[in-house]
Amino acid sequence: MFGIYGHSRAAAICYYGLHCLQHRGQEGAGIVTVQDGEMMVHKGEGLINEVFNEQILNSLKGNRAISHVRYSTGGDGGAENVEPLVFRAKQGSMAITHDGSLENADELRDRMEEMGSIFQTNSDSEVLAHLIRRSMHTQFVDKVKESLRSLVGGFAFMVLTESQLIAASDPWGLRPLSVGRLKDGYVVTSETCAFDIVGARWVRDVKPGEMIIIDGEGLHAEPFVMGGSKNMCAMEYIYFARPDSDLNGINVHTARKRLGKQLAKEAPVDADIVVGVPDSSISAAIGYAEQSGIPYEMGLIKNKYVGRTFIQPSQELREQGVKMKLSAVRGVVENKRVVIVDDSIVRGTTIKRIITLLREAGALEVHVRISSPPLQYTCPYGIDLKTSEELLAANHDQEEIRKMLGMDSLAHISVEGLVKAVGTFNEDGSCGQCRACFNGSYPTHS
Amino acid sequence: MFGIYGHSRAAAICYYGLHCLQHRGQEGAGIVTVQDGEMMVHKGEGLINEVFNEQILNSLKGNRAISHVRYSTGGDGGAENVEPLVFRAKQGSMAITHDGSLENADELRDRMEEMGSIFQTNSDSEVLAHLIRRSMHTQFVDKVKESLRSLVGGFAFMVLTESQLIAASDPWGLRPLSVGRLKDGYVVTSETCAFDIVGARWVRDVKPGEMIIIDGEGLHAEPFVMGGSKNMCAMEYIYFARPDSDLNGINVHTARKRLGKQLAKEAPVDADIVVGVPDSSISAAIGYAEQSGIPYEMGLIKNKYVGRTFIQPSQELREQGVKMKLSAVRGVVENKRVVIVDDSIVRGTTIKRIITLLREAGALEVHVRISSPPLQYTCPYGIDLKTSEELLAANHDQEEIRKMLGMDSLAHISVEGLVKAVGTFNEDGSCGQCRACFNGSYPTHS
Amino acid sequence: MFGIYGHSRAAAICYYGLHCLQHRGQEGAGIVTVQDGEMMVHKGEGLINEVFNEQILNSLKGNRAISHVRYSTGGDGGAENVEPLVFRAKQGSMAITHDGSLENADELRDRMEEMGSIFQTNSDSEVLAHLIRRSMHTQFVDKVKESLRSLVGGFAFMVLTESQLIAASDPWGLRPLSVGRLKDGYVVTSETCAFDIVGARWVRDVKPGEMIIIDGEGLHAEPFVMGGSKNMCAMEYIYFARPDSDLNGINVHTARKRLGKQLAKEAPVDADIVVGVPDSSISAAIGYAEQSGIPYEMGLIKNKYVGRTFIQPSQELREQGVKMKLSAVRGVVENKRVVIVDDSIVRGTTIKRIITLLREAGALEVHVRISSPPLQYTCPYGIDLKTSEELLAANHDQEEIRKMLGMDSLAHISVEGLVKAVGTFNEDGSCGQCRACFNGSYPTHS
Amino acid sequence: MFGIYGHSRAAAICYYGLHCLQHRGQEGAGIVTVQDGEMMVHKGEGLINEVFNEQILNSLKGNRAISHVRYSTGGDGGAENVEPLVFRAKQGSMAITHDGSLENADELRDRMEEMGSIFQTNSDSEVLAHLIRRSMHTQFVDKVKESLRSLVGGFAFMVLTESQLIAASDPWGLRPLSVGRLKDGYVVTSETCAFDIVGARWVRDVKPGEMIIIDGEGLHAEPFVMGGSKNMCAMEYIYFARPDSDLNGINVHTARKRLGKQLAKEAPVDADIVVGVPDSSISAAIGYAEQSGIPYEMGLIKNKYVGRTFIQPSQELREQGVKMKLSAVRGVVENKRVVIVDDSIVRGTTIKRIITLLREAGALEVHVRISSPPLQYTCPYGIDLKTSEELLAANHDQEEIRKMLGMDSLAHISVEGLVKAVGTFNEDGSCGQCRACFNGSYPTHS
Repeated sequence: MFGIYGHSRAAAICYYGLHCLQHRGQEGAGIVTVQDGEMMVHKGEGLINEVFNEQILNSLKGNRAISHVRYSTGGDGGAENVEPLVFRAKQGSMAITHDGSLENADELRDRMEEMGSIFQTNSDSEVLAHLIRRSMHTQFVDKVKESLRSLVGGFAFMVLTESQLIAASDPWGLRPLSVGRLKDGYVVTSETCAFDIVGARWVRDVKPGEMIIIDGEGLHAEPFVMGGSKNMCAMEYIYFARPDSDLNGINVHTARKRLGKQLAKEAPVDADIVVGVPDSSISAAIGYAEQSGIPYEMGLIKNKYVGRTFIQPSQELREQGVKMKLSAVRGVVENKRVVIVDDSIVRGTTIKRIITLLREAGALEVHVRISSPPLQYTCPYGIDLKTSEELLAANHDQEEIRKMLGMDSLAHISVEGLVKAVGTFNEDGSCGQCRACFNGSYPTHS
Repeated sequence: MFGIYGHSRAAAICYYGLHCLQHRGQEGAGIVTVQDGEMMVHKGEGLINEVFNEQILNSLKGNRAISHVRYSTGGDGGAENVEPLVFRAKQGSMAITHDGSLENADELRDRMEEMGSIFQTNSDSEVLAHLIRRSMHTQFVDKVKESLRSLVGGFAFMVLTESQLIAASDPWGLRPLSVGRLKDGYVVTSETCAFDIVGARWVRDVKPGEMIIIDGEGLHAEPFVMGGSKNMCAMEYIYFARPDSDLNGINVHTARKRLGKQLAKEAPVDADIVVGVPDSSISAAIGYAEQSGIPYEMGLIKNKYVGRTFIQPSQELREQGVKMKLSAVRGVVENKRVVIVDDSIVRGTTIKRIITLLREAGALEVHVRISSPPLQYTCPYGIDLKTSEELLAANHDQEEIRKMLGMDSLAHISVEGLVKAVGTFNEDGSCGQCRACFNGSYPTHS
Repeated sequence: MFGIYGHSRAAAICYYGLHCLQHRGQEGAGIVTVQDGEMMVHKGEGLINEVFNEQILNSLKGNRAISHVRYSTGGDGGAENVEPLVFRAKQGSMAITHDGSLENADELRDRMEEMGSIFQTNSDSEVLAHLIRRSMHTQFVDKVKESLRSLVGGFAFMVLTESQLIAASDPWGLRPLSVGRLKDGYVVTSETCAFDIVGARWVRDVKPGEMIIIDGEGLHAEPFVMGGSKNMCAMEYIYFARPDSDLNGINVHTARKRLGKQLAKEAPVDADIVVGVPDSSISAAIGYAEQSGIPYEMGLIKNKYVGRTFIQPSQELREQGVKMKLSAVRGVVENKRVVIVDDSIVRGTTIKRIITLLREAGALEVHVRISSPPLQYTCPYGIDLKTSEELLAANHDQEEIRKMLGMDSLAHISVEGLVKAVGTFNEDGSCGQCRACFNGSYPTHS
Repeated sequence: MFGIYGHSRAAAICYYGLHCLQHRGQEGAGIVTVQDGEMMVHKGEGLINEVFNEQILNSLKGNRAISHVRYSTGGDGGAENVEPLVFRAKQGSMAITHDGSLENADELRDRMEEMGSIFQTNSDSEVLAHLIRRSMHTQFVDKVKESLRSLVGGFAFMVLTESQLIAASDPWGLRPLSVGRLKDGYVVTSETCAFDIVGARWVRDVKPGEMIIIDGEGLHAEPFVMGGSKNMCAMEYIYFARPDSDLNGINVHTARKRLGKQLAKEAPVDADIVVGVPDSSISAAIGYAEQSGIPYEMGLIKNKYVGRTFIQPSQELREQGVKMKLSAVRGVVENKRVVIVDDSIVRGTTIKRIITLLREAGALEVHVRISSPPLQYTCPYGIDLKTSEELLAANHDQEEIRKMLGMDSLAHISVEGLVKAVGTFNEDGSCGQCRACFNGSYPTHS
């Protein structure tokens, strides 16, 4: 999610900014601009580079825009769900996009459908749009403010109208959202890594329960609810965000390296080499290596050319040993005792395959170290952990998992170790991370 | 370049094998299979995944195939140059593909054009085809052998006929070529990293001046010239090959890490962090960090979604600070003295941009360490170093370069350090690497 | 617009049926099927063959479907307007498509937007959807019936639900809609020419103000208003419909030939050859030739390969004589006195270009005969005649037009001649055609 | 086949010219231009509009060009056969394209392969290229002249070099080729209908055995053999050429109408309506109607939207009555005695389907009149009549055919009638048409 206000080539800036956010969603992309009261939109399924070309980009005129890359969290497929969504009306058009997930979307939707509303998508952005349209307030900003108050969940929204760019973060501070400064304007982005690429400088993060309004008179912030506090999704630190982003002022790569060091302290092992699972676990593996003194080696290679259109090997070919995506480097791991560092275990299928690859390549021992605590609870806030049935750690203890997946040893970081290593706190000293998927303590339920 | 003999789904195996070789060429891809005397071919410009889909792959029938990814070395563009090339004739069809570059291609081509031959491409493979067709020998293998003897340069060839797969390596052993074993057949590949992915095991490397013939009776090897010796391209070790490949039995990642360690010994520096230029310099940077005791950090991020169809920012946007491909991680490099490890300097444009990125992100000092000796001579053997004008080190000494590019210090590894760190030798004790681009000593000229 | 109920390959039947209706709209196409309560949809901009392929067609499962080709009448562009539109809801999904145009769409839309509805498209089908959703009736058929009563204009609608296919024609009978019989089911289509291609037989036309319901119990018809009468759009007979369709039981080619004969009676001329403007005026030209005894010749050729993606010649090339689409046949028209028969004059640009072509090819005289009366009034019912400024005959008399366009003589058929030649009447003897664009007498206003 | 010399936008002119020739081949298209000694080429499979877009067209620079649309005559598929073919060489590049077919291509090819030549395509153009390259003459024009003399068959060639456009017609005058004049240059085309569209005027036809050279000094013509005579392919008149073309000065539509009139004289019948098979038999049908006095009606409709990507109905759907491409107009043919006029019967499958369509639509009688004599012999000159097994009339007499195909009566025009109706003769009074497919008298064999 990336927005801009005040640059003559707003769509192009979105295009470059979105490239830094592509890891947050590969299923679709869209940009909406506005000029002279007319909203221009282009969206499509696939990667940014598949959706946009130069001609399209040039056709999106205007000096303000919002844009999005689509990450699907199951059951909500379909081209019509690619955002931003545009809502045209005589009273004025608006475009909306969001990150995260609402807990009460179905409830709000049902209530409005009973009152005659027609929904075209499964998107939470459309829920917000209907709330705004049904609001009895007369000022647009007040309509939005009232509507945001109805929402429960982890969310960051952007709303673009003919004259304003509005951005808001949920009262629990679950999802990241930051504001930056360009020479003559502002940018708003899910992750700070997008600032540098477009020549912007960080200004501030959007606070929990806060609404930012950018218009001809500059930037103006006001809370839509009081008493918000930070509960930034821990998985953003652990694997979702890009290593060069800062979340609540903490660099992600550095946090991950500290997670690796903490893990090495909590769960040391006698081994020859440390190997990270590419790409997201490299930082933690390097931290583990540094702390433990065991050398870091490139024992696994990810084939970066295996993209969306890659033809998966048939069952028959897989049985004949044809592999995909990842391969183990025999010259590195053969006859070695390997510590493999990964960021998380969901179903366990990936790590199981990696252990097989390493053993086939001649590894003597395989010790698994995970830089997150065991995933035991589902996430209603926008991370794709939908049912507890699919979570291995929700149904098995660590020793069972170790045996099932054929590891020589297994350890996860502790929740306390996570809190300490990341090191983000509220002013009252409480932890600034949501750890619900590890401990079942949901911020919105308390 | 990947070939297979003896698997019912030969084209699919090539498709998976080629994926491991995509880094060797992104401009085009092609597969030729043969069944019942009929050659089936599909080729196209772009990445493997852009050229092939499941339907096309299924249409390429037969249990033997050769395939290629195209790497252009300047001036030889055009779709018709995508290999393998197929030559149909009443006497029997053949397909040819190659890695590397012939020094005497123009001379051979001119002589044959004068004798009435028509060339359709700029490819060295077509030169070999015309030599074969004009040979007076009666046996096909003898025609090929005679033709190979006319060739001077760095090359690895594969020739597919209705009944045979022939592979050959130049007498100077400049380019890699290895043979592996499947359950019922053989594979031949430019790099050993492709064996693992298709479930094959390494058997042997093709020796300098050797020709391998695979047919219904198995594998048969014979020299086409005597007295070959290994002069494996040093740049394969330094940056071209994949880190999980073995070249002459030496793992590439391990060799690169040793290059980094050697560099740390030859050119130590007092600094806070070591940063590698992604992707090819990560191994050397980790080696440098280990040897020097300075921590390795992820100070540069490469945007992996910037692909072939990425729209480059206009001059105007670049001036406004819009960046591409690489970004520096402020949270990592700010207020740090940085050692940046890269594999080579050609024109110096990339490293100059990196230095600017690092300084803008707040680096206090930038020390550059290069894991190859200075590139001072052109390469006629298939690496894209065509003219000495473009080689910075051919025209400036180290101190000049340091100043021009704004480095706090600069050091390259020595040629002796390179020889020692890689550690590949002939049986007579001579170095097994071609170092012509560093010292001007061309193996084919001696 | 083509619908089907009761064929295991409903989507394929729509695909074939739509091909017969492609002349009614080339801007987009869509098919919706329903199976086990799930609506499957595929739509896109362009011709049917550009939007659908075999894989897509096979993915649209179910034994009932509605489909559409898009004809834009100005100002309502955009991919989101391609029909059928699908409206999903907990209470059950529905798909809607329509031909024609509502006069009171804006008024209905404004009223519902004020009540909080959000519109996603400019389509009249969405207006019907919102009316249905807001209806207080409990039975779906009653909701539809009530909603249809609110609509004013020329329209034919199809509504598909999980269990029913509903089709309706406006009370003034302005747009054609017919029902046919397959072995085990029914088809509904804008034009009867689609019956033959799918192996169906004509059963009945949908009457003015009538609603047809097809479900598991067969076909059931009931009026949604009383007192409807036929006012079939005269332009359907004159140029819009395909010559092999029957409108109100009258074959279109035959009607056009009678128009040509009537025109020859009303406006004879002394000439050497009769030439029709391809494709829609060929029938009338042959009628004119037969009645007048002047031979019919192929004096104009239309380039059938000039499609949507044709690159129009630049201004510079046009000035150098590069032509498009139509060319005159010198060998036929040179030194001849030509009667050119066309179906209508809107702005006059096409006929002006034709006259120039004929004179440049050596025609001695050019006499223009038009098989419609002069177009003097706009059409609010779905024919693309939006503003009277663009209608030449609304602003100039016949002699002025003749001079402006450089004709030797000009004649249109009379309104009385049109009525007589087409020959469709209501039971009370009143004319069964809408002639509003000729005489300003709008059926919905009386 | 379309060439141009002397227009700043040569590629664009080819693009427009080719559109008039698209009926001569729909399988591929290509344009080659030359500027400053560099040949630029773009080719592809499919229709012109699928192969070219504006960007491609603009990239083909130069003021001279040759271009081609591909018509395959069986067994010579493959993208590499799309013409023009470009042959680059140090001595200078050339591009070649051709219409027609060589009888002695295999023989010439075999002889040159034995001498070491490599052929890349099955195209006759490549045969000419190899002959030119092997010629011992020193002047390029002499090389071409010598090479043309070796060719036997029906052909028209164009050769483009850096400085010249050469065009040649076979000594038997089997295939059409005409030269026209632009303001500052010349165009050469397979059919004259392309002149008008690009603003050119006919200058002359290329004579049998003549070679035309266009260069900086203008147009120069010389025979490459003496004693040529016109034997223009009769099928060009009957169905292949476009009705607005002139062949040897005779307009094709007019010739076809005369064929219809002659047919009405030779084979009258008592019937109610005359119907032509669209598109190529309309002219003949109108001639038959005029001569006989029976009215011409549009009893068959061709669906013009059934293109290359149309999904053919499955066997199952065909059995259920789903039709393709052609439909009969019930409102026109029901209860009528129909004369159906078609241009030829090859296998008889199309006419059989038409007869079924007409009978199903209620025709009382179906009388078939064919505007060519019975096709009894194969064509080696470029018309797709490869084997006599496929020719119905080579294996059955007229009464057998009538019964097999279920006609009420059947008649073909006589060979004498054809000669008379077309009316093209040599100066010595001999017939100027090749009638070999009707009477087995091959011009190249005498």
